Amino acid sequence: MMIAKTPEPPYYTVIFTSLRTTGDNGYSKMADALEKSVINQPGFLGYESARDVLGITVSYWSDEESVRNWKENILHTKARNLGREKWYSEFKVRVAKVERDYGFGTE
Amino acid sequence: MMIAKTPEPPYYTVIFTSLRTTGDNGYSKMADALEKSVINQPGFLGYESARDVLGITVSYWSDEESVRNWKENILHTKARNLGREKWYSEFKVRVAKVERDYGFGTE
Repeated sequence: MMIAKTPEPPYYTVIFTSLRTTGDNGYSKMADALEKSVINQPGFLGYESARDVLGITVSYWSDEESVRNWKENILHTKARNLGREKWYSEFKVRVAKVERDYGFGTE
Repeated sequence: MMIAKTPEPPYYTVIFTSLRTTGDNGYSKMADALEKSVINQPGFLGYESARDVLGITVSYWSDEESVRNWKENILHTKARNLGREKWYSEFKVRVAKVERDYGFGTE
């Protein structure tokens, strides 16, 4: 997992913060399938993910329409429903427009 | 570390993604001091953090002016400079305006 290479702003981001339930319950298999699917989505720019107590996955998108299209993706919708049923005790999704950025060592 | 309780959008977020160098080198002490300082900043709404390979810290702010004021904070500026010198091999900061959000189990 590396820092995502993103273009000059503006672009969109979806911040997904979660607390997992215990056990895998099919989560890892779905996570792999989702990753394979998302990288082929129109407008997908990259993502970053980390988990210790909390899990944080931040994905980057070229525009709002691409964010909405991914939300309506069939596999993603199935994953969201299973997430509510089995994998997460809590989650929050925040959709935001990146206005500016700067980096160190990332160029 | 819990999922941050944030108000109805719009509000601002700063996504800080990083790769650490090896060793503590005074990082933990500064992280504690920064946490004590940020919670008293005007406009600070909360933050979420996780680290495995990558570190991701997402902070939430009521408006852009609060984000800028925190960037100019003396302790924060010192931490950013030490970060470039000692603690991080790479980092990226993205400032974004949260337009919408939804949650599960967070109400």
